[in-house]
Amino acid sequence: MRFVHETLPQRVRFATGESARAVAEEVEHLGARRVMLIASKDEAALAGPIASLLPVVRRHDEVVMHVPVEIARRARRAAADCEADILVSVGGGSTTGLAKAVAMTTGLPIVAVPTTYAGSEATNVWGLTEESVKRTGADPKVLPRSIVYDAGLLTGLPTMMAVASGLNAMAHCIDSMWGPRADPLDQVLAGEGIRRLALGLPRVKQGGPDIGGIEETLYGAYLAAVSFASAGSGLHHRICHVLGGMFDLPHAQTHAVVLPYVLAFNAPNAPEAERRIAEALDASSATAGLAALRATLDAPNSLKACGMPEEGITKAAGRILEAVPANNPTPATEDDIVRLLKAAWEGSEPS
Amino acid sequence: MRFVHETLPQRVRFATGESARAVAEEVEHLGARRVMLIASKDEAALAGPIASLLPVVRRHDEVVMHVPVEIARRARRAAADCEADILVSVGGGSTTGLAKAVAMTTGLPIVAVPTTYAGSEATNVWGLTEESVKRTGADPKVLPRSIVYDAGLLTGLPTMMAVASGLNAMAHCIDSMWGPRADPLDQVLAGEGIRRLALGLPRVKQGGPDIGGIEETLYGAYLAAVSFASAGSGLHHRICHVLGGMFDLPHAQTHAVVLPYVLAFNAPNAPEAERRIAEALDASSATAGLAALRATLDAPNSLKACGMPEEGITKAAGRILEAVPANNPTPATEDDIVRLLKAAWEGSEPS
Repeated sequence: MRFVHETLPQRVRFATGESARAVAEEVEHLGARRVMLIASKDEAALAGPIASLLPVVRRHDEVVMHVPVEIARRARRAAADCEADILVSVGGGSTTGLAKAVAMTTGLPIVAVPTTYAGSEATNVWGLTEESVKRTGADPKVLPRSIVYDAGLLTGLPTMMAVASGLNAMAHCIDSMWGPRADPLDQVLAGEGIRRLALGLPRVKQGGPDIGGIEETLYGAYLAAVSFASAGSGLHHRICHVLGGMFDLPHAQTHAVVLPYVLAFNAPNAPEAERRIAEALDASSATAGLAALRATLDAPNSLKACGMPEEGITKAAGRILEAVPANNPTPATEDDIVRLLKAAWEGSEPS
Repeated sequence: MRFVHETLPQRVRFATGESARAVAEEVEHLGARRVMLIASKDEAALAGPIASLLPVVRRHDEVVMHVPVEIARRARRAAADCEADILVSVGGGSTTGLAKAVAMTTGLPIVAVPTTYAGSEATNVWGLTEESVKRTGADPKVLPRSIVYDAGLLTGLPTMMAVASGLNAMAHCIDSMWGPRADPLDQVLAGEGIRRLALGLPRVKQGGPDIGGIEETLYGAYLAAVSFASAGSGLHHRICHVLGGMFDLPHAQTHAVVLPYVLAFNAPNAPEAERRIAEALDASSATAGLAALRATLDAPNSLKACGMPEEGITKAAGRILEAVPANNPTPATEDDIVRLLKAAWEGSEPS
């Protein structure tokens, strides 16, 4: 047992149906009096009741995916102009991301109210896009001081999107088992995340709205983000990052397809991960558990269907090989990667 | 699902056999250059190698149990006189406690190196004793910035003491399942703590020294402290606090005796705790699992043997009843408490 784990300071609050009151209390708890509320136009309806109980000095709705720098600059200027002393973000990953971009240069505290399962609210990672290149980094200033989760805000999320987003959280949990900085604390939180996602996602898949199912999924996505931010990106995320960049594949679907192949590749040499994942999925093995869950969720199962060209397999393999973390449980050769990608492209049984 | 959880910032490092280098790195990481090293005379031999790699400006060895205020005052003055910019504590709960008392008024950061399973290093709780009254409180300033755990420093701990201290950590975990602020995060960390303690303690009991067994126990005790600090003191600790105060009973033994009776009383009405504890102990039920572990450890099993007078049962029951947390899973009457204490006094089967 030899590791360093850094626990980051954050308040997290589950308050289904009571986000407006809870956010007001968190803002007061932080001693703030001038709120810049960040929410896109699409999120305005969800943000309304929350805004109504806050001392809002500005509502900012210019939210763009991947946080382009010029969007971040305008938001920072807006925060300065209105003399905000706190940022409240209501929305998905892009909205939280914009609040982080403002916090990064201003040091303003953030109260984040997520409306998807993206998980950005529980990490100290920021991202900014300039001339179509996305830079990312970690900075304690961008970690929201407080998160308010309200399952009631997610009932309108389309089922397909909710399931894809939840499977993305599952990929965070599984990759946290063997990421470059993975430690026993990451593993226990990720294991609980898997358990909660496996409880919640089948209920979310039913449509509903099933508040209890959303709560389990939100809590699982929160644990996924906490463990992933600490463990760092493992083999699964390295593969998806290369594929996404080279072939412009849909993010969530790519993750959903690739995950079982990475699990099948690593689990035989990662007994602790195997035990924890199998236990969390209440299955005889990790791969069997994930397969059963994916079947319940009708998860997408081939890179071909995601639009990846077959000749991409050999093209991507070299770049992926360079990116394999040194501590990956199963050492990978270029042949291994090609075999893995081929199986994922065809959608054949992971082995 | 409705809760607020506050995650406290801390680095934790497991570095068996390498504490000297690890502490030096943590001190450097914090940018400090003038170390006040706190370790009692008994701990001097363990502290020596650590001190040798540090810029020590003062070694302070006046450590007294329960941190009397005059001892704290002298240590604070010493820290000011030597212009320390960091405190490094090497020792058990009293040593960590003294470092906390200094941090409380000076704001100096602490790097804690524990040599027992007390767990104080992972909490923001301080304690000070004045005219034989112990006051306690929580303050973010007293939470050590960094903990370095080195199993090699615990090989000299007498087996009886190690087991008692480990069972005390077990009590922290179990009471964290239903403490007044217990939440799902506390429960998952406490569950993992129980699992690690159950793995480690039987190995520690063998004598050894078994470094792997000590590591498991240390990690379990760390998780116990983190979850207990968040969940707050539940029925078990309320009972032990009253008994300890009224009859001056030995701390660790009292906890070891009372725990199975509280578990048997609460588990039937705490299904989540029952499931988690049973799973962590790999047993058919929580009570069966704890009984089996206690048997392996030859744990003490009657309050009578701890020196409590029989007439104390009715005397204590009223005071305990007043202290029962409102959210205790099983509502308690005075009769319930008397029955529980009677069984614990006799050492009869918990039911």
